[in-house]
Amino acid sequence: MVKTTDTNMMKASELKKLVVDLLGTCNVPGDDAETTAQVLVAAEMRDIPSHGMLRLTDYIRMLLNGRMNAKAVPSVLHESPSTLTIDGDNGLGPVVADYAMKRAITKARTAGTGWVAVQNSNHFGIAGYYAMQALPHQMIGLCMCNANPLVAPTFAAGGVMGTNPLAIAIPAGKEPPLVADFATAAIARGKVDLLCKQGLPIEEGFVQDADGSPATDPCVLRHGGAILPLGSTRKYGSHKGYCLASAIDILSGLLSGANFGPYVPPSVDWLPLKDHLPGKGTGHFFGAMRIDAFRPEKEFLAAMEQWVSTFRNTKPAAGQEKVYIPGDPEREAEKRNRQTGIRLQETVKDQIKVVCKELNLDCPF
Amino acid sequence: MVKTTDTNMMKASELKKLVVDLLGTCNVPGDDAETTAQVLVAAEMRDIPSHGMLRLTDYIRMLLNGRMNAKAVPSVLHESPSTLTIDGDNGLGPVVADYAMKRAITKARTAGTGWVAVQNSNHFGIAGYYAMQALPHQMIGLCMCNANPLVAPTFAAGGVMGTNPLAIAIPAGKEPPLVADFATAAIARGKVDLLCKQGLPIEEGFVQDADGSPATDPCVLRHGGAILPLGSTRKYGSHKGYCLASAIDILSGLLSGANFGPYVPPSVDWLPLKDHLPGKGTGHFFGAMRIDAFRPEKEFLAAMEQWVSTFRNTKPAAGQEKVYIPGDPEREAEKRNRQTGIRLQETVKDQIKVVCKELNLDCPF
Repeated sequence: MVKTTDTNMMKASELKKLVVDLLGTCNVPGDDAETTAQVLVAAEMRDIPSHGMLRLTDYIRMLLNGRMNAKAVPSVLHESPSTLTIDGDNGLGPVVADYAMKRAITKARTAGTGWVAVQNSNHFGIAGYYAMQALPHQMIGLCMCNANPLVAPTFAAGGVMGTNPLAIAIPAGKEPPLVADFATAAIARGKVDLLCKQGLPIEEGFVQDADGSPATDPCVLRHGGAILPLGSTRKYGSHKGYCLASAIDILSGLLSGANFGPYVPPSVDWLPLKDHLPGKGTGHFFGAMRIDAFRPEKEFLAAMEQWVSTFRNTKPAAGQEKVYIPGDPEREAEKRNRQTGIRLQETVKDQIKVVCKELNLDCPF
Repeated sequence: MVKTTDTNMMKASELKKLVVDLLGTCNVPGDDAETTAQVLVAAEMRDIPSHGMLRLTDYIRMLLNGRMNAKAVPSVLHESPSTLTIDGDNGLGPVVADYAMKRAITKARTAGTGWVAVQNSNHFGIAGYYAMQALPHQMIGLCMCNANPLVAPTFAAGGVMGTNPLAIAIPAGKEPPLVADFATAAIARGKVDLLCKQGLPIEEGFVQDADGSPATDPCVLRHGGAILPLGSTRKYGSHKGYCLASAIDILSGLLSGANFGPYVPPSVDWLPLKDHLPGKGTGHFFGAMRIDAFRPEKEFLAAMEQWVSTFRNTKPAAGQEKVYIPGDPEREAEKRNRQTGIRLQETVKDQIKVVCKELNLDCPF
């Protein structure tokens, strides 16, 4: 029997409706549920499922048990012509981050650039989503965030740093925008976890054990081990990844009054909160820079077009097909997923089914 | 015979005088020579000799043959409340960068933050010097720069990117400031060159040959090879280093109207300039963020003190003595060099001796 439609594939609009309905049942206002749905589905579309629908049930559990505030209203704590500090009122990360990035863009309109530090927020999905919000305004967007501890500083035994992501989006005229969005660690936790579950080893240079010795057992993360920073070992530049992750931790966590390093709260409800936290919630940092605060827009965009075509047309290395521009792989994934629909992992579907049942909602799968 | 003083060791003040005298003979105004001396000697003091006195003879040759402008006067091309774009008038990098960073600090006083893009400049020494200029003002300092091509984007054969450094300096109250200053490449060119001269191989993951294949011969750089980005290979995250170096190239080179990627001019006089350059000179990008534009200074500094002590007191990995805070190694070097004096490499002394003779100046060694 030939299937004409694959019932495992879902449209973005169907997934968004599911998110909105589920969050609505948790007392999240409609607009905020809409925003969260946009962000989670954008991750699926861009082939970053670790930050997509997988997070929905964590968000819901944290809303239901009061660890997150469904009706959060972000407020301004501090302000200057080009800066703002925002209290996220312990809301859904995507809701707080969307609000903060929009404020950064508004600041940039008058001051040339806008910079917003956020405290008292939560996991916000993909950093690239917010950086890209600057693009239609002909601005460069920046976004960073600290995250719960998992990564060891160079020469340290403990995983006291987060994977602290950094995203930057730059308009490029007739070319697609340059969008970089990456964690400042040598590998994603999800990849290490998968190898552990499969009983497979991991190559050297990605993780270390609880003593800080090089490890090839991916399960060390469950026994006090840690992921290495971007750069892998000291020899290959882990101190540079450590520097970058530190700066992101401080801009996100300390400029705002959020937590930092080992104190950043977990983004799942089954891990306890630490006592005596030095700050409030998770921290973010956003930036928006108006192109024409530096140079006539037309000139910059023409230069970006030249930049993109120069790099794209660089001779590929032996065995490689082409040189990518940051953002190309995610854009190609979006194009593909728009045609095929989105395939959720079975475990993610199972988790969502359980929540739907608990909340008396029809589940589309 | 026991020597009571080591004549090979020079005081910082002696080196500065030498730089000022030599640049004076090349028609560089006194203040500008002073600034350049400060920057070059700071690199020596911080144990970064690749960006110190080694560069002096290159600077002098480029001044003498007219490739750099000894009497440059930077000017403002564009302005908004929080931004400036500056034409460096093809001056000495340290002179232009010092001017630009000071303007960023002035902008931050009124706008909360200040951001300065610079075109038409040259090699500026250590990026950390300018980032640190923000510290006495209780501001966070940022500095980046594009550099002549040497690094291959992920999957590319050609070394079309610079080692594009990034520096950030953050005040920390009673603790020493956090100062990160690093190139976004897997290894410094100087280290690769040294191995080539010594006829020694280099481990995999640092360089590739002209076809973009992994190489262990450090001399590949002389035959069209390239250095890998921060992250080493794709598997270990070279695409993240590529993203970071791209963003630095664009902020420094394109926001300002300088050159980018493969077009960034060489910082030595014995390499020719390319024809039909898309921009003007080398580009820089500076930022200054007033702490109290985000949060009361006292609160932030107390949080930084806690950050520094938390990270410094993290348990060291097996076999390691301690965990460093970004900037610790350079600060320890400064302390040591202040006591012992600075030892210049013999090849650097020889080059300077030749220049002293050409310019009829007494050389102190």
